[in-house]
Amino acid sequence: MSVINRLDSKEVDFQSRLKALLAFEASQDDAIESAVANILREVKEQGDAAVLAYTQKFDKVDAQSIQDLEIPLAECQVALSSLPPAQRQALEAAAARVRAYHERQKASSWTYTEEDGTVLGQKISPMDKVGLYVPGGKAAYPSSVLMNAIPAKVAGVGEVVMVTPTPNGQRNPLVLAAAAVAGVDRVIAIGGAQAVAALAYGTDTIAQVDKIVGPGNAFVASAKRRVFGTVGIDMVAGPSEILIVCDGSTPADWIAMDLFSQAEHDELAQAILLCPDADYLNAVETSIMRQLDEMPRKDIIRTSLKNRGALIHVADLDEACEIANFIAPEHLELSVKNAQQWVDKIRHAGAIFLGAYSSESLGDYCAGPNHVLPTSRTARFSSPLGVYDFQKRSSIIQVSHTGAQTLGRIASELAYGEGLQSHARSAEYRLDTKTSS
Amino acid sequence: MSVINRLDSKEVDFQSRLKALLAFEASQDDAIESAVANILREVKEQGDAAVLAYTQKFDKVDAQSIQDLEIPLAECQVALSSLPPAQRQALEAAAARVRAYHERQKASSWTYTEEDGTVLGQKISPMDKVGLYVPGGKAAYPSSVLMNAIPAKVAGVGEVVMVTPTPNGQRNPLVLAAAAVAGVDRVIAIGGAQAVAALAYGTDTIAQVDKIVGPGNAFVASAKRRVFGTVGIDMVAGPSEILIVCDGSTPADWIAMDLFSQAEHDELAQAILLCPDADYLNAVETSIMRQLDEMPRKDIIRTSLKNRGALIHVADLDEACEIANFIAPEHLELSVKNAQQWVDKIRHAGAIFLGAYSSESLGDYCAGPNHVLPTSRTARFSSPLGVYDFQKRSSIIQVSHTGAQTLGRIASELAYGEGLQSHARSAEYRLDTKTSS
Repeated sequence: MSVINRLDSKEVDFQSRLKALLAFEASQDDAIESAVANILREVKEQGDAAVLAYTQKFDKVDAQSIQDLEIPLAECQVALSSLPPAQRQALEAAAARVRAYHERQKASSWTYTEEDGTVLGQKISPMDKVGLYVPGGKAAYPSSVLMNAIPAKVAGVGEVVMVTPTPNGQRNPLVLAAAAVAGVDRVIAIGGAQAVAALAYGTDTIAQVDKIVGPGNAFVASAKRRVFGTVGIDMVAGPSEILIVCDGSTPADWIAMDLFSQAEHDELAQAILLCPDADYLNAVETSIMRQLDEMPRKDIIRTSLKNRGALIHVADLDEACEIANFIAPEHLELSVKNAQQWVDKIRHAGAIFLGAYSSESLGDYCAGPNHVLPTSRTARFSSPLGVYDFQKRSSIIQVSHTGAQTLGRIASELAYGEGLQSHARSAEYRLDTKTSS
Repeated sequence: MSVINRLDSKEVDFQSRLKALLAFEASQDDAIESAVANILREVKEQGDAAVLAYTQKFDKVDAQSIQDLEIPLAECQVALSSLPPAQRQALEAAAARVRAYHERQKASSWTYTEEDGTVLGQKISPMDKVGLYVPGGKAAYPSSVLMNAIPAKVAGVGEVVMVTPTPNGQRNPLVLAAAAVAGVDRVIAIGGAQAVAALAYGTDTIAQVDKIVGPGNAFVASAKRRVFGTVGIDMVAGPSEILIVCDGSTPADWIAMDLFSQAEHDELAQAILLCPDADYLNAVETSIMRQLDEMPRKDIIRTSLKNRGALIHVADLDEACEIANFIAPEHLELSVKNAQQWVDKIRHAGAIFLGAYSSESLGDYCAGPNHVLPTSRTARFSSPLGVYDFQKRSSIIQVSHTGAQTLGRIASELAYGEGLQSHARSAEYRLDTKTSS
């Protein structure tokens, strides 16, 4: 029984085996859906009282008001200064790098003036308020706080409100420290669908936000989907994935560990290696078998690799790039010599790691780019989380008196063609030949 | 009985009356939802056969294959050259202006190199394939073809596939002409949820697209929501809205007609005027009453203005801007003197029209900016349709040998903190102090 699936692009059933391996459909659980619909409705109608009641029930906390659930920023600062120095320095170094990278994503308003004096352009503004969901318990990742909050603050968002459940009142000091480093403006110890509802609809003590970002469990994901439209949301993520394209020049142990680093997230996580060198694939498989038992999360890794992982023998690196474009992976390592020459062939990937030294783990924490990336082939049409997710645009249209003479005639012709006579008349009023009151 | 609601910001119940006026909740019809779910499932399973069967049934066409439903590009060119010259010129002039504006939205890839040789950046790529939905019947607007297809083509999308239903086989020559002008690559006479499904999942004759854009009825909207994630979608739009801020210096007839031009779209459309001058509001109301009966779409306009329209007396223009930010309107006309000085106060609006000559109708057709805009207060967090909706980004991370020494230590510290040991080991393998196979 193999530790990981082996495929070969030459096999006749390769396409169907690959598709079967990639297939992942997020199931919707009817019980979760109806529970979430109820929670949303109650919070919308009853506000703070419902948020408090659900928090007492699910998180088993004895708070008597939302105020009791507020975590003061001073407590986050204390959490930060209480960290072991090496951990604090690492967190601050990572934050500084993430901030520096995202500063380059900031877009600016622009306009241009036409010959007749008409001004056109786009005004770019930050959102007013953003909600950041941070899971409680074991999936509470401080790096995720940095990756979600920093782009929002760089964009100029006025208030970033972090919500995070504290089951039995237990607060996660690393998460609070990350909130301090990232510049989060307010922290409230609530979670689940009730926290999403509070942010989406607003309550007496929690103002309505414009967008909600951050990972969460099935209840949170369902709630986010349901409030989309009332507020913006980031993408509802599927399991994490890595695709490695390797020419065989990277030490096999490194690549095996890179596969592990994806597989250890979750039994549904997907780790795939494409290589034209069959001997190298064997070496990686051997390394996997040798290193697996040393890993504390070996059970998760084993299940992930067995069910969803694969070592795929390909004809050459060109074919590997074609397959990569089909998969449109969340993370793509081009662990090859002269990686730069291959990156031009890649059209779809959330993040591209070039060369043997660019392990995905460096990107997950501190290289600078965001680790919130499109999963499940959505890199075909979506992008890493970024500053652009917290800015929005307004068209600017300032038509001059002269410009209105040209544009008015075009608009009125087309408006009559569409049967929209008021549109036509509105344009015609701006023509000098028309009289008006 | 008044032709339009009158509000005053000084009234004690102003906030609640305003909220009641703005309230709009898209109802979900269970019958539509389950019909759409069935259609999607059948097209996913049976492909072309299901698309054809539903098209025969709903559109009453006698096509025997999808090929029969293909509208050759040559037919679109014929439709264009058969238009009356004034209409053709207007369509081409509008397209040229829309294209010129959107060219300025094209984003380019960027990278930067750090001192240790590490390269970071973002690669920007167009989507491969985009589907454009164009409604049949009376809501078939050629301007909408231009506004959706041109940004996709400017972005560099390889193939824009337009689908549009042809009830009883009737083809709309203006829509086909617009497809020719916009550079649409393929046109198929299918519509409804079955067309959305074909684009989202792909069939033998219709390739899976990466994103589906364009307006549609309740079936189309439901289908788009359901396929979101498999493909990207644009926003599911609510009723169209205009908010006009006027200082009383624009002729009252112009403003009345601008309100009509929104109201004539749809009985649910919303047209609101804010002005500090009560006499001017009376003049606009008088103009509305005088001009209404001249309008071919007067019944729709009357219902829209009566149920959802309002003339609102405000304290001053500062307050008007505050209210505008709360409403976050799809279209905002700042029909005031020195409009430029007020635009800085506007944080949330889909499109801002400055000055008396900038009627919304000019923006709807030919000013250049897109007329697909965020509705129902979503301008708080979303943007006009643009080239950026058809490009996506991939992070670029090329860590140098030296860079890996710094980043590896930060990443491993944080990874151990999160209990992700394989992440830590993967980073550590890149440190010179570690040995590896």
